[in-house]
Amino acid sequence: MRSTRVVIIGGGFGGLSAALSLRDVDVTLIDRTNHHVFQPLLYQVATAALSPSDIAWPLRTILRGQRNIRVVMDDVLSIDRVVRSVTLRNSGPILFDVLIVATGSRHSYFGHDEWESFAPGLKTMADAIRLRERMLFAFEEADRRQAATGTHDPLNFVIVGGGPTGVELAGAMAEIGRKAMGPDFPTLRLNDLSIVLVEGGPRLLPGFSPDLSSKAADDLSHMGVTVRLNTEVTAVHAGAVSIGQERIPATNIIWAAGNKASPLLATLKARQDSTGRVYVTPDLSIPDEPWIFVIGDAAHCPGKDGAPLPGLAPVAMQQGRYVADMIEKDVPSEQRRPFVYRDRGMLATIGRARAVAEIGPLHVSGLIAWVLWCTVHIFFLIGFRNRVRVMFEWIWYYLTFKPGARLLYAQTQTSHEEERQRVDP
Amino acid sequence: MRSTRVVIIGGGFGGLSAALSLRDVDVTLIDRTNHHVFQPLLYQVATAALSPSDIAWPLRTILRGQRNIRVVMDDVLSIDRVVRSVTLRNSGPILFDVLIVATGSRHSYFGHDEWESFAPGLKTMADAIRLRERMLFAFEEADRRQAATGTHDPLNFVIVGGGPTGVELAGAMAEIGRKAMGPDFPTLRLNDLSIVLVEGGPRLLPGFSPDLSSKAADDLSHMGVTVRLNTEVTAVHAGAVSIGQERIPATNIIWAAGNKASPLLATLKARQDSTGRVYVTPDLSIPDEPWIFVIGDAAHCPGKDGAPLPGLAPVAMQQGRYVADMIEKDVPSEQRRPFVYRDRGMLATIGRARAVAEIGPLHVSGLIAWVLWCTVHIFFLIGFRNRVRVMFEWIWYYLTFKPGARLLYAQTQTSHEEERQRVDP
Repeated sequence: MRSTRVVIIGGGFGGLSAALSLRDVDVTLIDRTNHHVFQPLLYQVATAALSPSDIAWPLRTILRGQRNIRVVMDDVLSIDRVVRSVTLRNSGPILFDVLIVATGSRHSYFGHDEWESFAPGLKTMADAIRLRERMLFAFEEADRRQAATGTHDPLNFVIVGGGPTGVELAGAMAEIGRKAMGPDFPTLRLNDLSIVLVEGGPRLLPGFSPDLSSKAADDLSHMGVTVRLNTEVTAVHAGAVSIGQERIPATNIIWAAGNKASPLLATLKARQDSTGRVYVTPDLSIPDEPWIFVIGDAAHCPGKDGAPLPGLAPVAMQQGRYVADMIEKDVPSEQRRPFVYRDRGMLATIGRARAVAEIGPLHVSGLIAWVLWCTVHIFFLIGFRNRVRVMFEWIWYYLTFKPGARLLYAQTQTSHEEERQRVDP
Repeated sequence: MRSTRVVIIGGGFGGLSAALSLRDVDVTLIDRTNHHVFQPLLYQVATAALSPSDIAWPLRTILRGQRNIRVVMDDVLSIDRVVRSVTLRNSGPILFDVLIVATGSRHSYFGHDEWESFAPGLKTMADAIRLRERMLFAFEEADRRQAATGTHDPLNFVIVGGGPTGVELAGAMAEIGRKAMGPDFPTLRLNDLSIVLVEGGPRLLPGFSPDLSSKAADDLSHMGVTVRLNTEVTAVHAGAVSIGQERIPATNIIWAAGNKASPLLATLKARQDSTGRVYVTPDLSIPDEPWIFVIGDAAHCPGKDGAPLPGLAPVAMQQGRYVADMIEKDVPSEQRRPFVYRDRGMLATIGRARAVAEIGPLHVSGLIAWVLWCTVHIFFLIGFRNRVRVMFEWIWYYLTFKPGARLLYAQTQTSHEEERQRVDP
């Protein structure tokens, strides 16, 4: 084994792919959590269809077979290019010869970070569990109000952002809200449930072709989702979203619009775009630093058309493997071939037996796209166990419409707060 | 349907069994959480072997088929026997004609409630998740310290209480600690892990016969657990347990000793025993109140030998069905036959292929008892889905020793606190 010390920051798709491909060097993988999350299915945890452990797996277990890798659960506070070290929150600094920055992104509130508490986003498992709790509490609360007053207050869910996450969340919530929660809450009227999907641009799923965008919008409307295009959110409050003068009441607001890269990237002192992504050279390193790479959502890497590559799992995974290959082979800067993204297509699901798929010139929707979506997602899940569990849950849900994970760990809403304060005082 | 209004407090084994048997009256089931927990497997969630949703199921879904039942997620603050109503934390009072109190129990710290923050117990799903987090953090922290200092600090888990929960936790932690965490933490030495099970009485599993108690102690010792009998904990501190002058260092402390019934019972103004259980008449009602019943862990109900019946699921379930039957048939007080507990035996598991079973005169241990234990627990789980999931997890774990749910939802230990403060500010 070469004595090169490689440090990878982030155990998402990019960082983990790189780690799995590095066999001949000394690797330290640092992540804030102890697990890798299969992010494309995170919305199913947020809507209670899957359990956290169905789509997450400990990083240490995934990398158990590679004795050259050390996993560190910690927060990276800064990167020092000169000293070539990263400083951590809970332990001493770690030196590197080669650095792979794969820190992903968080949601961007376009300068209004105060909106986050009313409109949480969905990037981590903790986010997903919080969204699930808020959704389930909203139904319980509506039921309580109905019992107390006899009136039927509306249940309004507003999802901001019409990309894949927003579309998938809106579809899943419409389905689970009506088909699964309906029978559990006989006192609530199904038409009390409104789901509004707000998108600032002229169409949903802007990464897809316009015909599939329309198909997705039609499917969602058919499922009872109100799709509002060309609609800019101007303010977010507790219980409402403002669109100019209009105020949409919202029991729950979910933010699925805009990304900003990790604030850690600023400490790299490399040029960043407006969303915080680092401009990388064609070999994914940063200028003048052939052994510092930035990949995945953290990188601004132009694709064939010149536009930056989208923040998708396949991009991050291909970049991770590409970078790992150069490190393993110790390829000097001048001999590197530029990274080329091989686009194998895009998929987004809308509901049961509804999805859209775009694979080169092939545009598919409906049942076929949905089966394809299920197959691809099962295939890419890490580990036999998770594949079996997710497959079982989907078949079960398909047959019964009883999603498996509608648990509020917390107790009643008020004592929830107390509980939280009681724990680890 | 009769117009009798039955209120059930608590959706555990007792309350849920009663609810499932009540078809001809108007029922309101009140629980703090939205789910029923299969408590005998809670220790497997606490030790990361099972996921929360494997052993819990929404109460509303379980009771969906019964249109005579309303489920309310709320906290009962008090019971008024005179007005015949219960007051709730988040909604108005609910009137009853018949009341079933099935509020279970919490841990008792023998007057030292301040010990709870250092030595949490295991009664609810929130408890199980907290214990799991503490266990996983302890390993991460030991790994960090090892990297920082190069020394091997011991990892000490101390479990207080040698009843079924304590025995099952100790066995599971020994197994998971060595077999599952070992390969994930190559820098930690397996003999750094110490698990101490402290019991005040002269033997483990006091509910079982002495031969099985010895068998359990032998099995645990064989698995590397230090069993200390006749050992009274005199104080609990952060990081240590005192036994008289002796101080046992403890990375984690888990409390599995002693129960106290819900504080709500005091508002019933009926006679209670020293652990807070209400003394019930032979028909499980309270004196002078033939239509107020107390069942399960909340009741002090003498068995054949005069000693109070133990806090076991079968006792609570039989009591729930017995009470429901009297309510359905509207049996007047003087015509009721006393409740008789049919003891079908007891089981406790110690580890993979290790368990003890006592079924009347039959005492079994080892593999046969373990297979019996698995079968019985799968059978009693509610719902096909949960049975399949748990069976799959157990087979998977049996074959691979990779328990499925080692997830820290929270991020690094420090940001964990921040996260908690950030959520729902």
